[in-house]
Amino acid sequence: MCELLGMSANVPTDICFSFTGLARRGGQTGPHKDGWGITFYEGRGFRTFKDPLPSANSRIAQLVQDYPIKSCAVVAHIRQANSGPVSLENTHPFTRELWGRYWTYAHNGQLTDLPALADGRQRPVGQTDSEHAFCWLLNCLEQRYPAPPQDWPAMFAYVATLAAQLQQRGVFNMLLSDGEFVMAYCGTKLHWLTRRAPFGKATLLDEDVMIDFQQQTTPQDVVTIIATQPLTQDEVWHPMQPGEYGLFRYGEWLNR
Amino acid sequence: MCELLGMSANVPTDICFSFTGLARRGGQTGPHKDGWGITFYEGRGFRTFKDPLPSANSRIAQLVQDYPIKSCAVVAHIRQANSGPVSLENTHPFTRELWGRYWTYAHNGQLTDLPALADGRQRPVGQTDSEHAFCWLLNCLEQRYPAPPQDWPAMFAYVATLAAQLQQRGVFNMLLSDGEFVMAYCGTKLHWLTRRAPFGKATLLDEDVMIDFQQQTTPQDVVTIIATQPLTQDEVWHPMQPGEYGLFRYGEWLNR
Repeated sequence: MCELLGMSANVPTDICFSFTGLARRGGQTGPHKDGWGITFYEGRGFRTFKDPLPSANSRIAQLVQDYPIKSCAVVAHIRQANSGPVSLENTHPFTRELWGRYWTYAHNGQLTDLPALADGRQRPVGQTDSEHAFCWLLNCLEQRYPAPPQDWPAMFAYVATLAAQLQQRGVFNMLLSDGEFVMAYCGTKLHWLTRRAPFGKATLLDEDVMIDFQQQTTPQDVVTIIATQPLTQDEVWHPMQPGEYGLFRYGEWLNR
Repeated sequence: MCELLGMSANVPTDICFSFTGLARRGGQTGPHKDGWGITFYEGRGFRTFKDPLPSANSRIAQLVQDYPIKSCAVVAHIRQANSGPVSLENTHPFTRELWGRYWTYAHNGQLTDLPALADGRQRPVGQTDSEHAFCWLLNCLEQRYPAPPQDWPAMFAYVATLAAQLQQRGVFNMLLSDGEFVMAYCGTKLHWLTRRAPFGKATLLDEDVMIDFQQQTTPQDVVTIIATQPLTQDEVWHPMQPGEYGLFRYGEWLNR
């Protein structure tokens, strides 16, 4: 299994603290040693840092922990390979363009029975079940919406029905973002929390690092973190229910 | 104008030396201060480092100069904005999937008269003439080759005819790669050289850095570098002719 980490915020926020906890699980406090990746949106643009090496001793992961890239939407993943060899083309997240937006996707779980790829332009480059499922999703979306959707929440509700079909073929937990929205689909396991004023302190579960959010924030900040497993020990993480999805925009859960 | 840098090699080779020269031109020895990016292929996978900040003082550019990522195909770009604001979505290179391969593209020049986007799936995300032209190219290619081409050199010859059409609409120098091939189209200005045994020494034009390639190579290594302007002072750089294109694979120029 792999681990997912996502963020949605109403002001550009760095994710150094949370990523530090996640990165430790990549070959140190956890077994997810088969690569890692993180995508930061800035407006409609994005940049991805990834490495097929374990995050716990990746020099690039070190940069991401030290260098505060501020973003309103982040998708990150650490991998424990179960389908497809350890290589860069099999390292999440995956990003592809649709409707003039870049869509970034990461998957936790495994699919034992892959859906046939519908007619459509998206073809996998690597060998993972995850990328295959992403191509299938995008092809389904393009077929349903040849032109860019007008009603984005309705489009994400449709994504949730597709994700439920994938969950029936194995285990499918997913993060999906276009830089504006962050969608979290819980097939079996995801946790989330929203930080807002009054801000407190938090300590990582995986490393002896504490942060005082009050020092780093303004009273208006709203920051939601989504993760496979809770990352901190002194905050309340809410489990999502199997089959549930959260659609976040600028830190707020929209479909609740 | 911007500057391009490409590499094609028959063994995974780092580009730290050449990138160091290029990066200095991004706001220090040159005016290309509006962002930079570099894409490294490893097999069919790739990773891109990019920053809308000037490369001469980018912490991420510093990592790329220090950390030897070895690759057989590299595309890099430093930007002096002339179309589209300075932002991440307007920062080259651009990478999109077609035929189950990731295509990475960077453009030097400017187009005064953009071609209408043919029917096709590719839509620009940012505002540059460059990305618009990339979408147009890919749409033309998908229209001509709905299934993956069997004859890759013929496909690149077709790309060259499309590039010539773009050159008629302004200035169009381009690098294009899928990790196996590196194509360089010269609309007005590109230089190239191939390093092979016996290897010598070279000194950057933009910084007082010398390298002895003999220390870093084996006699079998073949490494071609393509750049807008020569990067070193003690090697012979060959100018390409306007309208000419080079198709490189594992360091060798195929279409000569």
